[in-house]
Amino acid sequence: MKPRAVVFDAYGTLFDVHSLTTRADPSVVGDLRALSMLWRQRQLEYTWLRSLMGRYEDFWNVTESALRSAARELHIHIDEAQRNGLMEAYLFPSAFEDVKPALESLRELPMAILSNGSMKMLESAVRHNNLTSFFTEILSVDRVRTYKPSPSVYLLATQALHLPASEILFVSSNWWDGSGAKAYGYKVCWCNRSTAETAFLEGIPDVTVTRLDGIADCLT
Amino acid sequence: MKPRAVVFDAYGTLFDVHSLTTRADPSVVGDLRALSMLWRQRQLEYTWLRSLMGRYEDFWNVTESALRSAARELHIHIDEAQRNGLMEAYLFPSAFEDVKPALESLRELPMAILSNGSMKMLESAVRHNNLTSFFTEILSVDRVRTYKPSPSVYLLATQALHLPASEILFVSSNWWDGSGAKAYGYKVCWCNRSTAETAFLEGIPDVTVTRLDGIADCLT
Repeated sequence: MKPRAVVFDAYGTLFDVHSLTTRADPSVVGDLRALSMLWRQRQLEYTWLRSLMGRYEDFWNVTESALRSAARELHIHIDEAQRNGLMEAYLFPSAFEDVKPALESLRELPMAILSNGSMKMLESAVRHNNLTSFFTEILSVDRVRTYKPSPSVYLLATQALHLPASEILFVSSNWWDGSGAKAYGYKVCWCNRSTAETAFLEGIPDVTVTRLDGIADCLT
Repeated sequence: MKPRAVVFDAYGTLFDVHSLTTRADPSVVGDLRALSMLWRQRQLEYTWLRSLMGRYEDFWNVTESALRSAARELHIHIDEAQRNGLMEAYLFPSAFEDVKPALESLRELPMAILSNGSMKMLESAVRHNNLTSFFTEILSVDRVRTYKPSPSVYLLATQALHLPASEILFVSSNWWDGSGAKAYGYKVCWCNRSTAETAFLEGIPDVTVTRLDGIADCLT
Protein backbone atom coordinates (compact mmCIF):
# COMPACT_ATOMS: atom_id res chain seq x y z
CA MET A 1 0.00 0.00 0.00
CA LYS A 2 1.27 3.43 -0.99
CA PRO A 3 -0.90 6.14 0.54
CA ARG A 4 -0.62 9.72 -0.71
CA ALA A 5 -0.95 11.22 2.79
CA VAL A 6 -1.03 10.15 6.43
CA VAL A 7 -3.52 11.42 9.01
CA PHE A 8 -2.85 10.87 12.71
CA ASP A 9 -5.17 10.77 15.66
CA ALA A 10 -3.66 12.73 18.58
CA TYR A 11 -4.50 11.46 22.09
CA GLY A 12 -3.35 7.92 22.74
CA THR A 13 -1.70 7.81 19.32
CA LEU A 14 0.82 10.68 19.32
CA PHE A 15 0.36 11.88 22.89
CA ASP A 16 0.27 9.88 26.09
CA VAL A 17 -2.86 10.70 28.06
CA HIS A 18 -1.98 8.31 30.87
CA SER A 19 1.12 10.17 32.02
CA LEU A 20 -1.11 11.51 34.78
CA THR A 21 0.64 9.71 37.62
CA THR A 22 3.87 11.53 36.90
CA ARG A 23 2.18 14.94 36.88
CA ALA A 24 -0.27 15.00 39.73
CA ASP A 25 0.46 17.21 42.67
CA PRO A 26 1.89 14.91 45.39
CA SER A 27 -0.85 16.14 47.68
CA VAL A 28 -3.51 14.31 45.62
CA VAL A 29 -4.31 11.18 47.62
CA GLY A 30 -5.80 8.12 45.98
CA ASP A 31 -5.38 5.55 43.21
CA LEU A 32 -4.09 7.79 40.42
CA ARG A 33 -3.92 4.95 37.92
CA ALA A 34 -7.63 4.28 38.46
CA LEU A 35 -8.31 8.02 38.20
CA SER A 36 -6.46 8.22 34.90
CA MET A 37 -8.38 5.27 33.43
CA LEU A 38 -11.81 6.46 34.55
CA TRP A 39 -11.06 10.05 33.50
CA ARG A 40 -10.28 8.84 29.97
CA GLN A 41 -13.33 6.55 29.89
CA ARG A 42 -15.71 9.30 30.98
CA GLN A 43 -14.07 11.77 28.58
CA LEU A 44 -14.74 9.47 25.61
CA GLU A 45 -18.23 8.60 26.79
CA TYR A 46 -19.06 12.28 27.11
CA THR A 47 -17.89 12.96 23.53
CA TRP A 48 -20.09 10.16 22.16
CA LEU A 49 -23.10 10.99 24.33
CA ARG A 50 -22.93 14.75 23.71
CA SER A 51 -22.66 14.13 19.97
CA LEU A 52 -25.71 11.84 20.02
CA MET A 53 -27.66 14.26 22.21
CA GLY A 54 -26.78 17.20 19.96
CA ARG A 55 -25.21 18.94 22.97
CA TYR A 56 -21.67 19.63 21.83
CA GLU A 57 -19.16 21.11 24.26
CA ASP A 58 -15.54 21.52 23.26
CA PHE A 59 -12.94 18.96 24.30
CA TRP A 60 -11.44 21.12 27.00
CA ASN A 61 -14.77 21.42 28.78
CA VAL A 62 -15.60 17.75 28.23
CA THR A 63 -12.21 16.75 29.62
CA GLU A 64 -12.62 18.91 32.70
CA SER A 65 -16.15 17.59 33.37
CA ALA A 66 -14.84 14.05 32.98
CA LEU A 67 -12.07 14.72 35.50
CA ARG A 68 -14.54 16.12 38.03
CA SER A 69 -16.83 13.11 37.65
CA ALA A 70 -14.03 10.52 37.75
CA ALA A 71 -12.55 12.04 40.90
CA ARG A 72 -15.95 12.19 42.62
CA GLU A 73 -16.81 8.62 41.64
CA LEU A 74 -13.51 7.37 43.04
CA HIS A 75 -13.81 9.53 46.17
CA ILE A 76 -10.54 11.30 45.36
CA HIS A 77 -10.60 14.87 46.54
CA ILE A 78 -8.97 17.36 44.17
CA ASP A 79 -9.12 21.09 44.69
CA GLU A 80 -9.06 23.69 41.93
CA ALA A 81 -5.28 24.05 41.82
CA GLN A 82 -4.82 20.28 41.67
CA ARG A 83 -7.44 20.01 38.93
CA ASN A 84 -5.70 22.71 36.90
CA GLY A 85 -2.47 20.82 37.31
CA LEU A 86 -4.02 17.63 35.98
CA MET A 87 -5.65 19.45 33.07
CA GLU A 88 -2.20 20.65 32.00
CA ALA A 89 -1.58 17.08 30.82
CA TYR A 90 -3.80 18.05 27.89
CA LEU A 91 -1.96 21.28 27.11
CA PHE A 92 1.53 19.85 27.54
CA PRO A 93 1.25 16.09 26.98
CA SER A 94 4.32 13.96 26.32
CA ALA A 95 4.61 12.50 22.84
CA PHE A 96 5.34 8.77 22.84
CA GLU A 97 9.03 8.11 22.21
CA ASP A 98 8.33 6.51 18.81
CA VAL A 99 6.54 9.58 17.43
CA LYS A 100 9.50 11.59 16.18
CA PRO A 101 11.26 8.65 14.47
CA ALA A 102 7.95 7.69 12.86
CA LEU A 103 7.30 11.19 11.54
CA GLU A 104 10.89 11.44 10.24
CA SER A 105 10.49 8.16 8.35
CA LEU A 106 7.22 9.30 6.73
CA ARG A 107 8.39 12.79 5.91
CA GLU A 108 8.04 12.44 2.14
CA LEU A 109 4.24 12.28 2.57
CA PRO A 110 1.91 15.11 3.57
CA MET A 111 0.90 14.53 7.19
CA ALA A 112 -2.00 15.89 9.22
CA ILE A 113 -3.61 15.55 12.65
CA LEU A 114 -7.37 14.95 12.97
CA SER A 115 -8.41 15.05 16.60
CA ASN A 116 -11.22 15.53 19.09
CA GLY A 117 -9.04 18.16 20.77
CA SER A 118 -9.73 21.85 20.52
CA MET A 119 -7.29 23.89 18.38
CA LYS A 120 -5.77 25.48 21.46
CA MET A 121 -5.07 22.06 22.97
CA LEU A 122 -3.69 20.59 19.74
CA GLU A 123 -1.46 23.52 18.85
CA SER A 124 -0.07 23.58 22.36
CA ALA A 125 0.64 19.83 22.36
CA VAL A 126 2.33 19.91 18.95
CA ARG A 127 4.45 22.94 19.83
CA HIS A 128 5.38 21.53 23.24
CA ASN A 129 6.81 18.43 21.53
CA ASN A 130 8.51 20.34 18.67
CA LEU A 131 6.42 18.60 16.02
CA THR A 132 5.07 21.68 14.22
CA SER A 133 7.18 21.29 11.08
CA PHE A 134 5.89 17.78 10.35
CA PHE A 135 2.25 18.64 9.79
CA THR A 136 0.60 20.42 6.87
CA GLU A 137 -2.75 20.48 8.68
CA ILE A 138 -3.99 20.33 12.25
CA LEU A 139 -7.71 19.64 12.18
CA SER A 140 -10.06 19.82 15.15
CA VAL A 141 -13.59 18.39 15.33
CA ASP A 142 -14.48 21.79 16.73
CA ARG A 143 -15.06 22.94 13.14
CA VAL A 144 -18.06 20.63 12.83
CA ARG A 145 -19.09 20.60 16.50
CA THR A 146 -19.45 16.85 16.81
CA TYR A 147 -16.99 14.11 17.76
CA LYS A 148 -15.44 11.01 16.26
CA PRO A 149 -16.60 8.61 14.93
CA SER A 150 -19.12 10.85 13.15
CA PRO A 151 -18.51 10.78 9.37
CA SER A 152 -18.60 14.58 9.33
CA VAL A 153 -15.34 14.53 11.30
CA TYR A 154 -13.53 12.13 8.95
CA LEU A 155 -14.65 14.29 6.02
CA LEU A 156 -12.54 17.16 7.38
CA ALA A 157 -9.23 15.51 6.48
CA THR A 158 -10.23 14.43 2.98
CA GLN A 159 -11.36 18.00 2.31
CA ALA A 160 -8.22 19.58 3.74
CA LEU A 161 -5.87 17.21 1.88
CA HIS A 162 -7.89 17.20 -1.35
CA LEU A 163 -7.62 13.42 -1.52
CA PRO A 164 -10.17 10.59 -1.39
CA ALA A 165 -10.18 8.67 1.89
CA SER A 166 -9.00 5.53 0.09
CA GLU A 167 -5.67 7.23 -0.71
CA ILE A 168 -5.05 8.35 2.87
CA LEU A 169 -3.60 6.22 5.66
CA PHE A 170 -5.40 7.02 8.91
CA VAL A 171 -3.37 6.12 11.99
CA SER A 172 -4.97 5.64 15.39
CA SER A 173 -4.35 3.73 18.60
CA ASN A 174 -8.05 3.91 19.46
CA TRP A 175 -10.00 0.93 18.11
CA TRP A 176 -13.24 2.89 17.92
CA ASP A 177 -11.54 5.71 15.99
CA GLY A 178 -9.93 3.25 13.60
CA SER A 179 -13.36 1.63 13.15
CA GLY A 180 -14.92 4.97 12.29
CA ALA A 181 -12.16 5.83 9.81
CA LYS A 182 -12.44 2.38 8.22
CA ALA A 183 -16.21 2.69 7.90
CA TYR A 184 -15.67 6.09 6.26
CA GLY A 185 -13.33 4.64 3.64
CA TYR A 186 -9.78 5.38 4.84
CA LYS A 187 -6.94 2.94 4.72
CA VAL A 188 -6.39 2.37 8.42
CA CYS A 189 -3.31 1.63 10.48
CA TRP A 190 -4.11 0.50 14.00
CA CYS A 191 -1.23 1.25 16.33
CA ASN A 192 -2.20 -1.28 18.97
CA ARG A 193 0.19 -0.15 21.70
CA SER A 194 -1.43 -2.29 24.37
CA THR A 195 -1.78 -5.38 22.14
CA ALA A 196 -5.35 -5.54 23.39
CA GLU A 197 -7.65 -7.84 21.49
CA THR A 198 -10.44 -5.33 21.00
CA ALA A 199 -12.06 -5.89 17.63
CA PHE A 200 -12.89 -3.18 15.12
CA LEU A 201 -16.59 -2.48 14.80
CA GLU A 202 -16.53 -2.36 11.00
CA GLY A 203 -13.94 -4.12 8.88
CA ILE A 204 -10.40 -4.80 9.98
CA PRO A 205 -7.29 -2.58 9.97
CA ASP A 206 -5.28 -2.57 6.74
CA VAL A 207 -2.11 -2.43 8.80
CA THR A 208 -1.52 -3.22 12.47
CA VAL A 209 1.63 -2.13 14.31
CA THR A 210 2.53 -1.94 17.98
CA ARG A 211 4.73 1.14 17.53
CA LEU A 212 4.37 4.10 15.17
CA ASP A 213 7.92 3.72 13.88
CA GLY A 214 6.87 0.39 12.38
CA ILE A 215 4.54 2.06 9.86
CA ALA A 216 7.08 3.01 7.17
CA ASP A 217 8.14 -0.60 6.71
CA CYS A 218 4.54 -1.56 5.97
CA LEU A 219 4.19 0.93 3.14
CA THR A 220 6.75 -0.52 0.74
CA MET B 1 -44.75 16.43 40.81
CA LYS B 2 -47.71 14.64 39.27
CA PRO B 3 -46.75 13.12 35.90
CA ARG B 4 -49.45 11.92 33.52
CA ALA B 5 -47.48 8.83 32.46
CA VAL B 6 -44.35 6.91 33.39
CA VAL B 7 -41.79 5.58 30.89
CA PHE B 8 -39.24 2.99 31.99
CA ASP B 9 -35.88 2.08 30.59
CA ALA B 10 -35.49 -1.72 30.48
CA TYR B 11 -31.94 -3.07 31.01
CA GLY B 12 -30.43 -2.13 34.32
CA THR B 13 -33.71 -0.48 35.36
CA LEU B 14 -36.35 -3.22 35.16
CA PHE B 15 -34.12 -6.15 34.23
CA ASP B 16 -30.85 -7.26 35.77
CA VAL B 17 -28.18 -7.62 33.07
CA HIS B 18 -25.51 -8.67 35.55
CA SER B 19 -27.18 -11.93 36.55
CA LEU B 20 -24.65 -13.54 34.21
CA THR B 21 -22.72 -15.37 36.89
CA THR B 22 -25.78 -17.37 37.90
CA ARG B 23 -26.50 -18.39 34.33
CA ALA B 24 -23.22 -19.26 32.71
CA ASP B 25 -22.54 -22.87 31.86
CA PRO B 26 -20.27 -24.18 34.67
CA SER B 27 -17.78 -25.15 31.98
CA VAL B 28 -17.01 -21.46 31.23
CA VAL B 29 -13.70 -20.80 32.97
CA GLY B 30 -12.65 -17.28 33.93
CA ASP B 31 -13.65 -14.16 35.83
CA LEU B 32 -17.36 -14.04 35.02
CA ARG B 33 -17.91 -10.85 36.97
CA ALA B 34 -15.30 -9.10 34.82
CA LEU B 35 -16.87 -10.64 31.70
CA SER B 36 -20.28 -9.32 32.68
CA MET B 37 -18.94 -5.80 33.27
CA LEU B 38 -16.91 -5.60 30.06
CA TRP B 39 -19.74 -7.18 28.04
CA ARG B 40 -22.09 -4.43 29.21
CA GLN B 41 -19.49 -1.71 28.62
CA ARG B 42 -18.78 -2.83 25.05
CA GLN B 43 -22.49 -3.28 24.37
CA LEU B 44 -23.19 0.34 25.30
CA GLU B 45 -20.11 1.65 23.49
CA TYR B 46 -21.18 -0.19 20.34
CA THR B 47 -24.65 1.38 20.48
CA TRP B 48 -23.18 4.88 20.78
CA LEU B 49 -20.46 4.33 18.18
CA ARG B 50 -22.74 2.65 15.64
CA SER B 51 -25.27 5.45 16.04
CA LEU B 52 -22.58 8.09 15.45
CA MET B 53 -21.12 6.17 12.51
CA GLY B 54 -24.56 5.74 10.95
CA ARG B 55 -24.06 1.95 11.05
CA TYR B 56 -27.03 0.72 13.02
CA GLU B 57 -27.30 -2.96 13.92
CA ASP B 58 -30.08 -4.17 16.17
CA PHE B 59 -29.49 -4.71 19.88
CA TRP B 60 -29.36 -8.50 19.63
CA ASN B 61 -26.48 -8.33 17.15
CA VAL B 62 -24.73 -5.56 19.07
CA THR B 63 -25.04 -7.57 22.28
CA GLU B 64 -23.63 -10.70 20.67
CA SER B 65 -20.70 -8.80 19.12
CA ALA B 66 -20.00 -7.22 22.50
CA LEU B 67 -19.96 -10.64 24.18
CA ARG B 68 -17.53 -12.00 21.60
CA SER B 69 -15.20 -9.03 22.04
CA ALA B 70 -15.37 -9.01 25.85
CA ALA B 71 -14.59 -12.72 26.05
CA ARG B 72 -11.67 -12.39 23.62
CA GLU B 73 -10.26 -9.37 25.45
CA LEU B 74 -10.39 -11.22 28.75
CA HIS B 75 -9.03 -14.44 27.22
CA ILE B 76 -12.13 -16.35 28.28
CA HIS B 77 -12.93 -19.11 25.83
CA ILE B 78 -16.63 -19.56 25.10
CA ASP B 79 -17.94 -21.88 22.42
CA GLU B 80 -21.14 -21.39 20.48
CA ALA B 81 -23.35 -23.29 22.93
CA GLN B 82 -21.93 -21.34 25.87
CA ARG B 83 -22.41 -18.07 24.01
CA ASN B 84 -26.02 -18.94 23.25
CA GLY B 85 -26.52 -19.72 26.92
CA LEU B 86 -25.17 -16.32 27.93
CA MET B 87 -27.25 -14.51 25.31
CA GLU B 88 -30.37 -16.05 26.86
CA ALA B 89 -29.88 -13.60 29.71
CA TYR B 90 -31.26 -11.02 27.27
CA LEU B 91 -34.28 -13.11 26.27
CA PHE B 92 -35.13 -14.26 29.79
CA PRO B 93 -33.63 -11.71 32.18
CA SER B 94 -34.70 -11.53 35.80
CA ALA B 95 -36.65 -8.43 36.81
CA PHE B 96 -35.29 -6.76 39.95
CA GLU B 97 -37.36 -7.67 43.00
CA ASP B 98 -38.66 -4.12 43.39
CA VAL B 99 -40.17 -4.00 39.89
CA LYS B 100 -43.53 -5.61 40.53
CA PRO B 101 -44.30 -3.64 43.73
CA ALA B 102 -43.28 -0.45 41.91
CA LEU B 103 -45.51 -1.13 38.93
CA GLU B 104 -48.42 -2.04 41.23
CA SER B 105 -48.04 1.23 43.12
CA LEU B 106 -48.04 3.28 39.90
CA ARG B 107 -50.85 1.40 38.21
CA GLU B 108 -53.19 4.40 38.00
CA LEU B 109 -50.85 5.95 35.43
CA PRO B 110 -50.24 4.82 31.84
CA MET B 111 -46.83 3.09 31.77
CA ALA B 112 -44.53 2.30 28.87
CA ILE B 113 -41.08 0.86 28.18
CA LEU B 114 -38.61 2.71 25.93
CA SER B 115 -35.52 0.64 25.34
CA ASN B 116 -32.50 -0.04 23.16
CA GLY B 117 -33.65 -3.67 23.00
CA SER B 118 -35.22 -5.17 19.91
CA MET B 119 -38.95 -5.93 20.09
CA LYS B 120 -38.28 -9.66 20.26
CA MET B 121 -35.98 -9.18 23.25
CA LEU B 122 -38.32 -6.78 25.05
CA GLU B 123 -41.49 -8.80 24.53
CA SER B 124 -39.71 -11.94 25.71
CA ALA B 125 -38.34 -10.22 28.84
CA VAL B 126 -41.70 -8.69 29.76
CA ARG B 127 -43.58 -11.96 29.22
CA HIS B 128 -40.98 -13.99 31.09
CA ASN B 129 -41.50 -11.78 34.16
CA ASN B 130 -45.32 -11.63 33.88
CA LEU B 131 -45.31 -7.86 33.42
CA THR B 132 -47.33 -7.64 30.19
CA SER B 133 -50.48 -6.23 31.77
CA PHE B 134 -48.71 -3.21 33.25
CA PHE B 135 -47.60 -1.57 30.00
CA THR B 136 -49.67 0.24 27.42
CA GLU B 137 -46.66 0.53 25.08
CA ILE B 138 -43.40 -1.29 24.54
CA LEU B 139 -41.19 0.88 22.36
CA SER B 140 -37.92 -0.18 20.76
CA VAL B 141 -35.30 2.13 19.25
CA ASP B 142 -35.39 -0.29 16.33
CA ARG B 143 -38.20 1.87 14.87
CA VAL B 144 -35.78 4.76 14.34
CA ARG B 145 -32.61 2.69 13.84
CA THR B 146 -30.46 4.68 16.22
CA TYR B 147 -29.80 4.35 19.95
CA LYS B 148 -30.23 6.35 23.13
CA PRO B 149 -29.44 9.14 23.91
CA SER B 150 -30.45 10.34 20.42
CA PRO B 151 -33.44 12.73 20.66
CA SER B 152 -35.20 10.72 17.94
CA VAL B 153 -35.45 7.85 20.44
CA TYR B 154 -36.95 9.94 23.24
CA LEU B 155 -39.45 11.34 20.75
CA LEU B 156 -40.95 7.84 20.35
CA ALA B 157 -42.53 7.81 23.80
CA THR B 158 -44.01 11.30 23.61
CA GLN B 159 -45.57 10.36 20.28
CA ALA B 160 -46.92 7.03 21.51
CA LEU B 161 -48.36 8.51 24.71
CA HIS B 162 -49.63 11.72 23.09
CA LEU B 163 -48.11 13.76 25.90
CA PRO B 164 -45.38 16.41 26.06
CA ALA B 165 -42.13 15.17 27.61
CA SER B 166 -42.56 17.57 30.52
CA GLU B 167 -45.66 15.65 31.66
CA ILE B 168 -43.96 12.25 31.54
CA LEU B 169 -41.71 10.78 34.24
CA PHE B 170 -38.84 8.93 32.61
CA VAL B 171 -37.27 6.32 34.89
CA SER B 172 -33.78 4.97 34.29
CA SER B 173 -30.92 3.49 36.29
CA ASN B 174 -28.47 4.51 33.56
CA TRP B 175 -27.02 7.98 34.16
CA TRP B 176 -26.38 8.58 30.46
CA ASP B 177 -29.97 7.59 29.59
CA GLY B 178 -31.35 9.85 32.31
CA SER B 179 -29.14 12.63 30.97
CA GLY B 180 -30.50 12.16 27.46
CA ALA B 181 -34.10 12.12 28.67
CA LYS B 182 -33.49 15.22 30.79
CA ALA B 183 -31.91 17.06 27.85
CA TYR B 184 -34.93 16.09 25.77
CA GLY B 185 -37.32 17.61 28.29
CA TYR B 186 -38.70 14.73 30.36
CA LYS B 187 -39.12 14.78 34.09
CA VAL B 188 -36.50 12.26 35.12
CA CYS B 189 -36.28 9.79 37.96
CA TRP B 190 -32.82 8.32 38.39
CA CYS B 191 -33.02 4.94 40.10
CA ASN B 192 -29.44 4.94 41.35
CA ARG B 193 -29.26 1.31 42.44
CA SER B 194 -25.51 1.38 42.95
CA THR B 195 -25.47 4.76 44.71
CA ALA B 196 -22.63 5.66 42.33
CA GLU B 197 -21.72 9.33 42.17
CA THR B 198 -21.79 9.61 38.41
CA ALA B 199 -23.11 13.01 37.42
CA PHE B 200 -25.74 13.67 34.79
CA LEU B 201 -24.36 15.27 31.63
CA GLU B 202 -27.15 17.79 31.35
CA GLY B 203 -29.20 18.99 34.26
CA ILE B 204 -29.95 16.95 37.35
CA PRO B 205 -32.62 14.30 38.04
CA ASP B 206 -35.98 15.60 39.25
CA VAL B 207 -36.22 12.59 41.55
CA THR B 208 -33.53 10.19 42.77
CA VAL B 209 -34.37 6.86 44.36
CA THR B 210 -32.32 3.75 45.11
CA ARG B 211 -35.22 1.35 44.50
CA LEU B 212 -38.09 1.55 42.03
CA ASP B 213 -40.68 1.00 44.75
CA GLY B 214 -39.65 4.36 46.19
CA ILE B 215 -41.03 6.28 43.23
CA ALA B 216 -44.71 6.44 44.19
CA ASP B 217 -43.90 8.23 47.46
CA CYS B 218 -42.11 10.97 45.51
CA LEU B 219 -45.13 11.74 43.33
CA THR B 220 -47.52 12.99 46.00
